[in-house]
Amino acid sequence: MVEIRRHLHMHPELSFQEVKTAAYIAGYYRDLGIEVEENVGGNGVVATIHGGLPGKTVALRADFDALPIQDEKDVPYRSTVPGVMHACGHDGHTAALLVLAKTLHTNRAQLKGKIVCIHQHAEEYAPGGAKSMIEGGCLKGVDVIFGTHLWASEPLGKIQYKEGPMMAAADRFTISIQGKGGHGAQPHKTKDSVVIASQIVVNLQQVVSRRVDPVHPAVVTVGSFKAENAFNVIGDTAELVGTVRTFQEDVRSQIEEEIRKVVAGVCSMWDAEYEYNFDRGYPAVVNDPEITSYFKKAAEKVDGVSSVEESELQMGGEDFSYYLQHVKGTFFFTGANPNGTEPAPPHHHPRFDFDERAMLLAAKTLYRAAADYQSED
Amino acid sequence: MVEIRRHLHMHPELSFQEVKTAAYIAGYYRDLGIEVEENVGGNGVVATIHGGLPGKTVALRADFDALPIQDEKDVPYRSTVPGVMHACGHDGHTAALLVLAKTLHTNRAQLKGKIVCIHQHAEEYAPGGAKSMIEGGCLKGVDVIFGTHLWASEPLGKIQYKEGPMMAAADRFTISIQGKGGHGAQPHKTKDSVVIASQIVVNLQQVVSRRVDPVHPAVVTVGSFKAENAFNVIGDTAELVGTVRTFQEDVRSQIEEEIRKVVAGVCSMWDAEYEYNFDRGYPAVVNDPEITSYFKKAAEKVDGVSSVEESELQMGGEDFSYYLQHVKGTFFFTGANPNGTEPAPPHHHPRFDFDERAMLLAAKTLYRAAADYQSED
Amino acid sequence: MVEIRRHLHMHPELSFQEVKTAAYIAGYYRDLGIEVEENVGGNGVVATIHGGLPGKTVALRADFDALPIQDEKDVPYRSTVPGVMHACGHDGHTAALLVLAKTLHTNRAQLKGKIVCIHQHAEEYAPGGAKSMIEGGCLKGVDVIFGTHLWASEPLGKIQYKEGPMMAAADRFTISIQGKGGHGAQPHKTKDSVVIASQIVVNLQQVVSRRVDPVHPAVVTVGSFKAENAFNVIGDTAELVGTVRTFQEDVRSQIEEEIRKVVAGVCSMWDAEYEYNFDRGYPAVVNDPEITSYFKKAAEKVDGVSSVEESELQMGGEDFSYYLQHVKGTFFFTGANPNGTEPAPPHHHPRFDFDERAMLLAAKTLYRAAADYQSED
Amino acid sequence: MVEIRRHLHMHPELSFQEVKTAAYIAGYYRDLGIEVEENVGGNGVVATIHGGLPGKTVALRADFDALPIQDEKDVPYRSTVPGVMHACGHDGHTAALLVLAKTLHTNRAQLKGKIVCIHQHAEEYAPGGAKSMIEGGCLKGVDVIFGTHLWASEPLGKIQYKEGPMMAAADRFTISIQGKGGHGAQPHKTKDSVVIASQIVVNLQQVVSRRVDPVHPAVVTVGSFKAENAFNVIGDTAELVGTVRTFQEDVRSQIEEEIRKVVAGVCSMWDAEYEYNFDRGYPAVVNDPEITSYFKKAAEKVDGVSSVEESELQMGGEDFSYYLQHVKGTFFFTGANPNGTEPAPPHHHPRFDFDERAMLLAAKTLYRAAADYQSED
Repeated sequence: MVEIRRHLHMHPELSFQEVKTAAYIAGYYRDLGIEVEENVGGNGVVATIHGGLPGKTVALRADFDALPIQDEKDVPYRSTVPGVMHACGHDGHTAALLVLAKTLHTNRAQLKGKIVCIHQHAEEYAPGGAKSMIEGGCLKGVDVIFGTHLWASEPLGKIQYKEGPMMAAADRFTISIQGKGGHGAQPHKTKDSVVIASQIVVNLQQVVSRRVDPVHPAVVTVGSFKAENAFNVIGDTAELVGTVRTFQEDVRSQIEEEIRKVVAGVCSMWDAEYEYNFDRGYPAVVNDPEITSYFKKAAEKVDGVSSVEESELQMGGEDFSYYLQHVKGTFFFTGANPNGTEPAPPHHHPRFDFDERAMLLAAKTLYRAAADYQSED
Repeated sequence: MVEIRRHLHMHPELSFQEVKTAAYIAGYYRDLGIEVEENVGGNGVVATIHGGLPGKTVALRADFDALPIQDEKDVPYRSTVPGVMHACGHDGHTAALLVLAKTLHTNRAQLKGKIVCIHQHAEEYAPGGAKSMIEGGCLKGVDVIFGTHLWASEPLGKIQYKEGPMMAAADRFTISIQGKGGHGAQPHKTKDSVVIASQIVVNLQQVVSRRVDPVHPAVVTVGSFKAENAFNVIGDTAELVGTVRTFQEDVRSQIEEEIRKVVAGVCSMWDAEYEYNFDRGYPAVVNDPEITSYFKKAAEKVDGVSSVEESELQMGGEDFSYYLQHVKGTFFFTGANPNGTEPAPPHHHPRFDFDERAMLLAAKTLYRAAADYQSED
Repeated sequence: MVEIRRHLHMHPELSFQEVKTAAYIAGYYRDLGIEVEENVGGNGVVATIHGGLPGKTVALRADFDALPIQDEKDVPYRSTVPGVMHACGHDGHTAALLVLAKTLHTNRAQLKGKIVCIHQHAEEYAPGGAKSMIEGGCLKGVDVIFGTHLWASEPLGKIQYKEGPMMAAADRFTISIQGKGGHGAQPHKTKDSVVIASQIVVNLQQVVSRRVDPVHPAVVTVGSFKAENAFNVIGDTAELVGTVRTFQEDVRSQIEEEIRKVVAGVCSMWDAEYEYNFDRGYPAVVNDPEITSYFKKAAEKVDGVSSVEESELQMGGEDFSYYLQHVKGTFFFTGANPNGTEPAPPHHHPRFDFDERAMLLAAKTLYRAAADYQSED
Repeated sequence: MVEIRRHLHMHPELSFQEVKTAAYIAGYYRDLGIEVEENVGGNGVVATIHGGLPGKTVALRADFDALPIQDEKDVPYRSTVPGVMHACGHDGHTAALLVLAKTLHTNRAQLKGKIVCIHQHAEEYAPGGAKSMIEGGCLKGVDVIFGTHLWASEPLGKIQYKEGPMMAAADRFTISIQGKGGHGAQPHKTKDSVVIASQIVVNLQQVVSRRVDPVHPAVVTVGSFKAENAFNVIGDTAELVGTVRTFQEDVRSQIEEEIRKVVAGVCSMWDAEYEYNFDRGYPAVVNDPEITSYFKKAAEKVDGVSSVEESELQMGGEDFSYYLQHVKGTFFFTGANPNGTEPAPPHHHPRFDFDERAMLLAAKTLYRAAADYQSED
């Protein structure tokens, strides 16, 4: 498992460009004689293990794309591709699932039902690979799905689950202000786009503080404010770009409209024009309560898992959410802090790494969840 | 006069780089046998005409630098230097003074006192040429100074004067916010520099609206807001750059402090750091009331001047202000609209031009002001 | 039970003035021969039922104060006291507990341990009665506590529980701005307290939107803005009064400080003075997870309870929170919508009422929770 | 003159209630045999002195109403009417004009043209008395008008004039916000009128700082912010009341509209309703340049006048402006500081007083202005 992971770690590929990684995965299955389908919804790979006994079909998902980050770790398995790095642990997800699949295949005679191994490309970059893989049929006949993320902030041995909303919907908005430029000494002849955009930023704070139900977590962030001009010039335009995070679809839609109202209201004070776009990214990961309940009990039985705890809500996004819109299932975090109890470099950091022993725990927990679910019937 | 102006117009030079223009001017005087000093405080040229009769010394000033603008006019005398253009009429100022000087020199026997022709470089770019020319001695022995600006927004034949403050002090400020960056989904772990800077822009409006005496005109403009980041990133820093316009030194100093208070107050709400710089540009042009009164009467006598009116305050700056800090004098506008009563392209516009007949009126008005002043004694 | 409730409903008493109600309750117990203590921490009444079998001590709490609201219902049991009304169901809480106590007393031979009936005064008005009753010893020897609120927004038959935080801490803050008054035509001679206070209100929005962890619900509301002056006068002072709602002690303390920073930062922009007070009201109701888990199972067994669901977080406050700071326990909602599935007038409304059958369900659920807890040992 | 003034000072009457004062003035003229008309446009009194020589008609205006202020001076001539006081010097204006009229009447043989003495009621309270007196015919046949204000901030002997705009238009606006009330813990169910109104106050700052030409003085002040509620309640409504000061009619109209835009824009962000009223008070006092020029020279000749200076713009209002909309004329300030060079209590202060010698200077300057104007023809 470590060998596979390190191989992938040394040869990372960016989202939607994971041709070699996909070929590696497919070759692995082919060599084992496991049924495998390539190019599912893009670079996706789907392998199916047929159990010897009748039963339900369980999908297990692992993503395999890397990030546009320069690896700054000083380890033998460091990335060999300049500016590209597995800085989020997807290499570990893949290695865990591949080895689990091999074991299941070996013992397939006693296996109930089917296990569908979904190796997904492009989790890091919207619109993501999940959506197209589903359109490509990867969930056909699937009864339930499980997935995990190695989680470097939590210690080895901890599994985190959450019923209902777990990870946020992550959307992007752009606001382009069309004011009227002029000389900085004559503001009255202009529509000052810097002031207009600043008022929008200030007034946007009310969306979360006043407009959204306080028990529904939400974030509205303006990440970028672009209005560079000479010191004595009032520019025509200003551009704001930002992100919205929510856990409920109605809150998501509400915020899309509340932002529009703030922008329109401020611009109307100035007779200024604007363009507003709200681009929906991945929806929220919403775990099925019943399956999560099964999962929790299953995880507690896994050898090496020392604690099973409820996760806090995570404002980050995951396109695992799309699978959960089609079949029941649950997503969980597998503690993988490489530093024991010390803080570790966060995900997407140039020095990100994880405790490789966590891969085994991830594989065992996925297996246990699948097996228990199939046994329940 | 037109010939000289067009020569200069075709060969513009940027501020502090006006070597050939200076040589041209000096050569002109030398050829006429007029006393001339080069490299006064930089590229400045000072010529002195000694009258045959005793009297006061009057300085007349003309600036001669051009701007980094591409000439888009379709005329035979269009600029031959790509990206450089006499877009503010300084070529006309120079031509008017050169020809006036020649005439005065010819008639020097009847001339009282002395006429000092100050040909100033670098009016367009702070710290300007006036300050260093004064340090270079150009005002030595001077009793009074007059200067004019060809003014394309006013019709030919109109002269505009103003007692006391006439053109604004033009200062520049920069505010660098040091917040704390992080992920756009986790604002509570950051100090959001976009929000901080936006609050500063919004709260800066109170400086003019509430803090400054309403009868004292003032402008605080944030021209540039620089905080470009990815949509889901909260950046460490934001930078604001802007300009302040005032007519009174105490208001100028007050605003410098009021801005500091707003910046400090907003940053203290966030425990954020900042750096604030207020760079003083040219002070306000403040005309001497007594000299302006003389001037007004003198201008009314000039043949071709059809109206002499009080100017409104101008929020633009002029380094003629430095001369007025050392000797009495007055600055005036000479109407030069090339389109008659139609609006003309404004100063600093790629299609800026002026009615060349205005040069003669400028020269005659300068002469009349000087002569009348000398006669008063 | 209905009779008792209607009697209390017709004779409501305001918080800290509930003398007759307390006497009524104490008399009820005395008539039954149940041990009862009066004037516990004020008007509180505590009755103790000693079971015939050994076991744990369980406290059950019911509050009994009314509100300064004019009863506008048209029913025979409408309030007979002008301007005072049981508009929150405390009459029902009391009736349910009294009848339950009578039943338990009758069957005390088979009862394990002890049941402590805490009849609490003054829930509606800070500092509330719970704190002083605890100081008066009402929790002495108590192992666990249960309490409920009749909940008119939920249908009859529904019980709502919540592990951990359930109801918010409710605090009060006042901000007094000392600016400098003057004539409305001369703002520069003043420190405009209306603008200062308005900037504070606007900038306070950032506390929830940017400073608090988005997964931790919080509210900062300025309810009152007091700055009345003549139209052409700038007043010396402005006063803001508001409320803060939180579920975590660290968030509560953080917000107290964040408000201070906003106030101090804005005032420093103006060299204005301020006074800021943050008065802590009831802390958050935080239910014990283990006891809540017991409770949930117990509630599911109650005859007449058709659904047991997790409650959303409630931004309202309850001084039941104080008991939970001393002993383990849980608080729950008993559905009592008088209109079936139609919306009902909300709590504290002049036409508030509840389905009286809910009292019986409340009593039975309290009993079941107590009995099951005692049986577990 | 002092006697008359002190009599008036002891018997002040509020605007529109000056019945006895008007009778006193009319009686004074009748006793002298001067033509006098009462009840001109209300309590106004107009006396006419016919000169023995042909010439122009000059109006001189003095106002005579007092203020709702308790006199706190410790002088023999202190007000005898509780809560009413001549705290703005109108008693002095009246005394000066009465005595001047007597002198003119005595010497009427040598007087050219006519002198119309306009004794105006109700200057302190909009809509003022000037407008109705004009409608009542007080300017019939008048060629030019002069008026003065005793000015306690300037020393005795100083006269202040100003060409063009001198005193501001003083308008009043009210903004009523209709949000949606609710509980302070549930802002998302409300439209928070306190936040809405605060955003309006903050955004109104841009009107003066960005929208109005910086060389045109203007003030927008929100004097009153009314939104008192319980600390945990979000109120339905908030009310803002304020004043606008301007010197140009177009700026006045522009600001009326800019305020509307800000209010409408902010309310549209919240789907809130509003009502906005802009009530025009006195227009700006705009002195005729030519007459002011005459006046300046006349004032310089007055015995006892030691300096004649240009006044700064005054943000305060005066209904003398209405006369200037009908006939040429000028208004001036007569220095009357009772403390010599020390600061004096400002106008409208409970301890306001003036140097009574200023009345004589006011009378002499009014006479000289009138006489010189009549002589010019």
